[in-house]
Amino acid sequence: MASSFKRLLIGKPIATEHQHHERLNKVTALAVFSSDALSSVAYATEAILAVLLLGGASALGLGLPIAGGISFLLVVVAISYRQTIHAYPNGGGAYIVAHENLGQLPGLIAAAALLIDYVLTVAVSISAGVAAITSLAGNWGAPWLASYAVEIALLCILIVGLANLRGVKESGAVFAVPTYVFIVGILAMIAWGVAGIFLGTTQPVVQSIEPELHAGEALGLWLVLRAFAAGCTALTGVEAISNGIPAFKQPEAKNAATTLSWMVGILGTMFLGITWLADRLSAIPNEATHETIVSQIARTTFGVGPVYTVIQVATALILVLAANTAYADFPRLASLLARDRFLPRQFSSRGDRLVFSNGILVLSLFAAGLVVYFRANEIAMLPLYAIGVFLSFTLSQGGMVLHHLREKETGWRTGLSINGLGAVLTGVVLVVLAVTKFTHGAWAVLVLIPLLVLIFQAIHTHYVRVAEQLSLTTADKPQPLRRLTAVVLVSGVHKGTLPALQIAKSLAPDNVTAVTINLDPEHIEKIRARWCDWGCDVPLVVLESPYRSLISPLLKYLEEIGSRYKDDELMVILPEFVPAHWWEHLLHNQTGLILRTALMFRAGKTVISVPYKLER
Amino acid sequence: MASSFKRLLIGKPIATEHQHHERLNKVTALAVFSSDALSSVAYATEAILAVLLLGGASALGLGLPIAGGISFLLVVVAISYRQTIHAYPNGGGAYIVAHENLGQLPGLIAAAALLIDYVLTVAVSISAGVAAITSLAGNWGAPWLASYAVEIALLCILIVGLANLRGVKESGAVFAVPTYVFIVGILAMIAWGVAGIFLGTTQPVVQSIEPELHAGEALGLWLVLRAFAAGCTALTGVEAISNGIPAFKQPEAKNAATTLSWMVGILGTMFLGITWLADRLSAIPNEATHETIVSQIARTTFGVGPVYTVIQVATALILVLAANTAYADFPRLASLLARDRFLPRQFSSRGDRLVFSNGILVLSLFAAGLVVYFRANEIAMLPLYAIGVFLSFTLSQGGMVLHHLREKETGWRTGLSINGLGAVLTGVVLVVLAVTKFTHGAWAVLVLIPLLVLIFQAIHTHYVRVAEQLSLTTADKPQPLRRLTAVVLVSGVHKGTLPALQIAKSLAPDNVTAVTINLDPEHIEKIRARWCDWGCDVPLVVLESPYRSLISPLLKYLEEIGSRYKDDELMVILPEFVPAHWWEHLLHNQTGLILRTALMFRAGKTVISVPYKLER
Repeated sequence: MASSFKRLLIGKPIATEHQHHERLNKVTALAVFSSDALSSVAYATEAILAVLLLGGASALGLGLPIAGGISFLLVVVAISYRQTIHAYPNGGGAYIVAHENLGQLPGLIAAAALLIDYVLTVAVSISAGVAAITSLAGNWGAPWLASYAVEIALLCILIVGLANLRGVKESGAVFAVPTYVFIVGILAMIAWGVAGIFLGTTQPVVQSIEPELHAGEALGLWLVLRAFAAGCTALTGVEAISNGIPAFKQPEAKNAATTLSWMVGILGTMFLGITWLADRLSAIPNEATHETIVSQIARTTFGVGPVYTVIQVATALILVLAANTAYADFPRLASLLARDRFLPRQFSSRGDRLVFSNGILVLSLFAAGLVVYFRANEIAMLPLYAIGVFLSFTLSQGGMVLHHLREKETGWRTGLSINGLGAVLTGVVLVVLAVTKFTHGAWAVLVLIPLLVLIFQAIHTHYVRVAEQLSLTTADKPQPLRRLTAVVLVSGVHKGTLPALQIAKSLAPDNVTAVTINLDPEHIEKIRARWCDWGCDVPLVVLESPYRSLISPLLKYLEEIGSRYKDDELMVILPEFVPAHWWEHLLHNQTGLILRTALMFRAGKTVISVPYKLER
Repeated sequence: MASSFKRLLIGKPIATEHQHHERLNKVTALAVFSSDALSSVAYATEAILAVLLLGGASALGLGLPIAGGISFLLVVVAISYRQTIHAYPNGGGAYIVAHENLGQLPGLIAAAALLIDYVLTVAVSISAGVAAITSLAGNWGAPWLASYAVEIALLCILIVGLANLRGVKESGAVFAVPTYVFIVGILAMIAWGVAGIFLGTTQPVVQSIEPELHAGEALGLWLVLRAFAAGCTALTGVEAISNGIPAFKQPEAKNAATTLSWMVGILGTMFLGITWLADRLSAIPNEATHETIVSQIARTTFGVGPVYTVIQVATALILVLAANTAYADFPRLASLLARDRFLPRQFSSRGDRLVFSNGILVLSLFAAGLVVYFRANEIAMLPLYAIGVFLSFTLSQGGMVLHHLREKETGWRTGLSINGLGAVLTGVVLVVLAVTKFTHGAWAVLVLIPLLVLIFQAIHTHYVRVAEQLSLTTADKPQPLRRLTAVVLVSGVHKGTLPALQIAKSLAPDNVTAVTINLDPEHIEKIRARWCDWGCDVPLVVLESPYRSLISPLLKYLEEIGSRYKDDELMVILPEFVPAHWWEHLLHNQTGLILRTALMFRAGKTVISVPYKLER
C-alpha cells in the first residue's frame, strides 16, 4: 500500500540505462540556466528601496546609482566566469574550482556556502513568487489571499519537491515558455513605461493604502552600503551556467560563454529599467498592502488588466523555476560531497527515478522551515542571502587566479587580470555584505558555514577510519575452517522452534545448546515438560533474570560459552515467526529485533535468524 | 545516554521477587479506594446546576431533589456491590463478573466501557483539580492562572504518569492525608455553613462578575432528566473497592463491604450537603470567572483565608488521587485483556519497575488528548463520562443475577432481588444517560464501545490463529538433517567480507556462492579484480539490476537456487560492519537491515548476520 502510494506520487522506477542527457541550444539553455539570475529582478530593486526608505523619501533617489554599481559588478563577475567556463568545460562549480586550486578547506567552505544559499534560493524565490500572486490578487479584489502566503509557499515547495522526485525530464520546453514571457513582459513594461513617462501619459503609482515612511536613520555611507548589499542579491544565480556547461550543444564552452553574455545583458537591462521606473513612478515598498514594486510599476504602466496579469503570473512562474534550479544544484553538490566522503553516502545514491532523492528531500525540509520561520517574507530573508554566493564567487575566482598561475595557458595574463579583479571586487563586496548585514541575520550564516565545514570534516574522518579498518592491506591470512557451536534461543516449544532446532543440528551436529530465559516460572515449567517430546537430544539451559531483562543474562551466558569453546565459531540461532500481515507485527513483542540488535551490535556475535512464516 | 535519562526519570529496575502486596486496614483502604468516588462531589453538584441553569434561575431549586434521587441510586448500587464483594473475594471487576456469568461479548463490552471511562476519569479529575487551584488563585488575586489551565493539567498528567511508571509503593500514607483532610474539610464546611444559615450569619455568595443567566430552554421533564444524568457522575468510582478486595486485611470481603458502606455514607452526606448549601447560598456556575461551586461555598462560609485555602488544595489533591486510581485500574484491566488475548500482549508485560508501563503510557496519551481537545473544561467532558460506568454497573449486576441463579448459595433469593433491582435501576439510568446526553457527545462513546469490542475480537482472532499455526499437535516428524547451501552477499572485498566467507565455508564447505549486485559497473570491476586474491575458491555471481534495486534481483536469484538445490537448507549470509558509535549508523546505508527484512519477511529465508565490529 505504501509502495503504490509512492508510485502514484513519483511514478514508476526508471532503468539506469535510460539516464539521458538532453543537449540544449543557446535559446533553451538561456531559459534553463538563467531563471535564478533573471528572477532576482523581482525583488532586488525592492530590497534596495526598503533600506533606503529608512533614510526618508529623499534617499530613494540613490536607488538608481546603487543599481548602476551593482550592474557594473555583475559585468565584472560575468567576464570572470567566462574564464571559468573555458577552463572547466566539464562544469566548474565553486566547490570543484576552489577544491582543485586552493585546496580542500576552501573547497569545503565554498560548498557549505553554496548549500546554504541553495536553501535560501528556494525559500526566497518561492516567497517572492507567492508575493507576486498575492499582489495580483490584491489588485483583483482579493487582498485576503496575502494572509495565506505561508500555506501557499509550503504548497509550492511540496509541488516543486515532488516534481523533482519524479525527475523533470521535459526541462527545456517547461522552462522556455515562462522565462521568455517574463523577459518579454518586463522589457515591454520598461519600454512602455519609459515611453509613457516621456510622453507624459503615465502617472505616478497610486497606493491603495499610503505606505509608512519611517525615516528612522540618518542618510550616510552606512545606509548606502546597506542598500548596496541588499541589492547584491541580483547577482545570485549568475554562476548557474558555469555549472551546466556539459548540457550545451557543441562547442559547449563557447555556447555557454555566449549564453552567459546574453543573460547578463538582459538581467542588467531589466534591473536598471525597473529601478529607474520605480524612481520616476514613486513606487515604494508598502508593508500595509504587501504589494511588490514590480506589481506597482506594472499596474501603473498597463492598468489592472490582462497585460498586468500576464506579467505577475510570469514573474511568479519564473520565481518557481528559480527555486527549481536550486533543486538541481543542491542535490548535485550534495552528491559530489558525498562521493568525496564529506556527506553521508545516502546523498550520492540515485532513487527510483534516477534523481538524488535524499538531497531533494533535505532541501525541501530546510526551505520549508525557513518559509515558516520568516512567514514567507522574502525581504526579511534577504540579509541571509547573497553572502554564500559572494563567498563562493570569491573562492572560485581566487581559484582561477591560481589556475592561471599554474597552467600558464595562452593568454593567461589577461585571464589572470580578469579573475584577479573579479576575486578582489567580490571579496570586497563579501566583506561589505558580512559587515552591513551582520546584525540583521547574516551572523547566522557566518556561524553556520564553519559549523558545516566541521561536520563535513568529521564525516570524512569517520569514512576514512572505516576504510582503513576495512582495508585488506593489513588483513591476516584467512583462518582455517572452525568447528561450529550453536546456541538456539527458545521462547516456547512450538512449530516456530522446530526449524531452528533442525538447522542448529544440521550445522553443529554435536554441539547445540538450547537456551531460554526465565521471565515467568509457570511458563518455564511448561517448556521443560514439553521439551523431551521435541528437543530431548539438545540440552536446555534456563537462565534466571531477576530484573525481567532478556539481554543481560543472555550476553553473560554467551560470554561464558565463548570462553569455554574459544576455538569454535559461536553462532546464536533465533527462531522468529513472521505474521502474515505487516500490521500484525504490532501485536507481538519485537523481541527478535531487540535481541538481534544487542547480539550483533553490543556483543559482535553472528546471529542466524530462522523465520517461520505464518500463512494467515 | 538514553538509558541513564530513563533511570533518572523512573529509577533503577526492581527485581521480580520484590513484588509485594501491602495489606490495608479499613481506614487506609477507604483513602486508597475512595478518592475517585469522593472527589466527584467536587463537580457533580455543579454539573446538575449547569444544566438546570438553562431553565432559568427558578429551576435551580430542583437541584436538591435531583441530588436526593441520585443519592438513593448510590445506596442501591452500593448494596448491590456488597453482593459482588462477597461473591468475588479475589476481586470482581465488571469485566470478570460479566465475562464469567454473561459470556465473552458482555465481558468485552464492559471492558471497553471501563477503559474509556478510566481515560475520562483522568481527564475529568485532573481538569477539575486544576479548576480548584485556579479558583483559589482567582480569589487570591491571580485570575490569570485560569488561562494556563491546559498547560497545568498536562503537567499534572505528566507527573502522575511518571510517578506510576516509577511505581507508587508508598500508596497508603500518600493517599490517607489528603483524603481525610478533604473529608474533614468538606464536612466542616457543610456543618459551619448549615449553622451559619440557621444563625443568619452566613450571607449568599457574592460573585466578582455576575454570571450570565441564559434561560434558553423550557423547564420540563427533559431538562430534569438531563440534570439528573449530569449528576450521575457522582457514582463514578463506587466500583473501585470491589476491584481491590485482595488488598484488604483479613477477613477481606467483610472489611471491604464495611469500607464500602462507610464510603457511600460519607459520599452521600457530602453530595447532599454541598447541593443544599449551593441552593441556600445561591452558588451558581460562573462561566466568566470559572470559579467552582465548591470554591464559592467555601469562601462564603469561611472567607478567603487559611481554611478556604486548605479546602481548595485538598480538593485538588484528592482529584489528582482520583486520576491516580485510574492509573491503577486501566493498566490492570488492559493486562487482563492482554492475558486473555484481546489486547496486544505488550500490555501484559511488567516494565523495569514492575508496573504495566505500556498501559500507563497509553492512558496518559489519551487523557492528555482529551484535556487538549476540551481545553481542560471538566464540565464539557462530563456528557462523555458516566455512560461507561453505568454500562459496566448494569452488566456487572446482570452478571450477579445469573450468578445467584446458577450458584443458589445460601440467601441467594435476597441477593437475587438486590442485584436484580440494581441491574434494572442502573439499566434504566443508562438509557436515560444515553438518550439525554446523546447529542452532547455521548454518541462518540456509544460508537467507540462497539468499535473497541470489534478491535478486541480481531486481535483475539489473530492470536488464536497464530497459536493454531504454532501448535505442535499437527507438527510433522522432525526432518532429517539436511545439507547446507550458503549464499554470501558481497558488497565489496574488504575485511568485513572475510569472516562471512570463512563462516560460509565452515558450514557448507563444498556449496558456497558469493553474490553481488551490479549498481555501478566500475565498482563491480574492482570487486572482480580483487576477488581472486581473497575469495577465489568461492564462485562470484554478479546480478544485474536495471532499476538499481537490491531486493528484486536477489529474491529472483534465490528462488532459482532454491529450486535447483531443493533438498538443501538454503542460508543467506550477510556480512555487516558495525560502527563504533551508534550515531555513525546514520552515515551508512541501512542496506543490511533492508535486505534482512526482505529476505526473512518476504522470502522466508534463513539469514545469517555476520558482524564485523569497527574499533573506532
